[in-house]
Amino acid sequence: MLNIVIIGTGNAATVLGKKLCAAGHQIIQVYGRNKENAQKLAGLLKSVPVSEWTEILTTADIYLLAVADDVIEEVSNHLQVKNKILVHTAGSVSKNVLSKASERFGVLYPLQSLRKEMEPLTAVPLFIDASDEQTLKLIYELAMSISKQVTVADDMERMKLHVAAVFSNNFSNYMYMLAEQYCKKENLHFKHLLPLINETATKLQYNPPSLSQTGPASRGDKKTIQRHEELLNDYPTMKEVYQFLTAKISELNKEKDTGN
Amino acid sequence: MLNIVIIGTGNAATVLGKKLCAAGHQIIQVYGRNKENAQKLAGLLKSVPVSEWTEILTTADIYLLAVADDVIEEVSNHLQVKNKILVHTAGSVSKNVLSKASERFGVLYPLQSLRKEMEPLTAVPLFIDASDEQTLKLIYELAMSISKQVTVADDMERMKLHVAAVFSNNFSNYMYMLAEQYCKKENLHFKHLLPLINETATKLQYNPPSLSQTGPASRGDKKTIQRHEELLNDYPTMKEVYQFLTAKISELNKEKDTGN
Repeated sequence: MLNIVIIGTGNAATVLGKKLCAAGHQIIQVYGRNKENAQKLAGLLKSVPVSEWTEILTTADIYLLAVADDVIEEVSNHLQVKNKILVHTAGSVSKNVLSKASERFGVLYPLQSLRKEMEPLTAVPLFIDASDEQTLKLIYELAMSISKQVTVADDMERMKLHVAAVFSNNFSNYMYMLAEQYCKKENLHFKHLLPLINETATKLQYNPPSLSQTGPASRGDKKTIQRHEELLNDYPTMKEVYQFLTAKISELNKEKDTGN
Repeated sequence: MLNIVIIGTGNAATVLGKKLCAAGHQIIQVYGRNKENAQKLAGLLKSVPVSEWTEILTTADIYLLAVADDVIEEVSNHLQVKNKILVHTAGSVSKNVLSKASERFGVLYPLQSLRKEMEPLTAVPLFIDASDEQTLKLIYELAMSISKQVTVADDMERMKLHVAAVFSNNFSNYMYMLAEQYCKKENLHFKHLLPLINETATKLQYNPPSLSQTGPASRGDKKTIQRHEELLNDYPTMKEVYQFLTAKISELNKEKDTGN
């Protein structure tokens, strides 16, 4: 059981905080610039809210900085905890931004789309790193207490995973968003597409996505592509995305055909 | 209980055939140009395989043409069943391509990524259409016997749904494919991304995708975008897709900022 101070009150702070609390760790304080948010999360975590840097206790084992990427370093410099462990939760930020604030530091990066209200049982793979072996061991134990999937990953590996996550999450979600906007304007129910979207995701457990690439672009069905493009004449962004990705997917087949 | 002849032995023929069989309909024949495939599917459906057009019985209530979009019309002309119901399963093909082969015809379009080996309980929304009211009623009953989600949709509506499906399925799968190829080349496990992909799909049940658009492009995080682009220098296609979609997602925020 570790004593933890959580800095931040957003999605990562809330989800990780709940998991740490449920695993039996003591969240001794929750820091939030906004008092109300700090109080709310502290209430959930049986913890104490603070909104001033000077109020933060120096007795915790771990200070979890679950804040926006671009303020991690700044926040860490507010903490006067030279011999305690500072941990940030960002995929694309080096662990070394914490090196000025403490000798012991590390990373706990959840490769998941965290929302405050998400199902507690949702799998959250964690990627960890640390300043030294002893600190890594402690962060590993902490990570294992809240996730079944814990992997050590250095700055470069985490950044690469983050790039892959942008494609898997941000870009696929953008496709769903375009489909939803289109359905709304065309008086179709986007919910009709949810079984298809779920199946597309689910079957990745059994089949690599390269084997599931179907549709008009994949089979070179120019007639259907042309009809689709006509339907998108009033949707310039969608049409542009359609044409761009159709060209990219068509290239895959050319590569296959020529054996490249 | 209806007597059905299934034309085709691919994914749609197999999945719909299994569901029809399980619902108590009689699959009196399975036609497949390839004898082995016809035998295999007929075996699954307690049916009789045929591989010659002249062997097809004229006594079925419904002839289900689960074949590739571009051969539906040609296949229908092989069937000498003027007063029987012909049904195709394509999203982007007009019902009228069947009008030469019979007076009664229609469509049963499954808005799902069908695979022979898919879970029997996977939801398969069906979109139906027909030449006349009486035929529509029969196809509706048939559809309701194998799916909880049945909607009447004319040629234009089905084509629009198909466009939305291309974004939701083909294009999102292409994002997964790029992520998988990248992981493979960078010695990272694509399976680490599956919980994220599943959560991205699952949460659409509660949150519209427009509210789930996160990531560096969405928050205008130029520093991270630049680092990601550098990581993709050896992956020209991925880099191009990254830059294209990052620009598109960034435009969303500009629209929000200016109130458009």
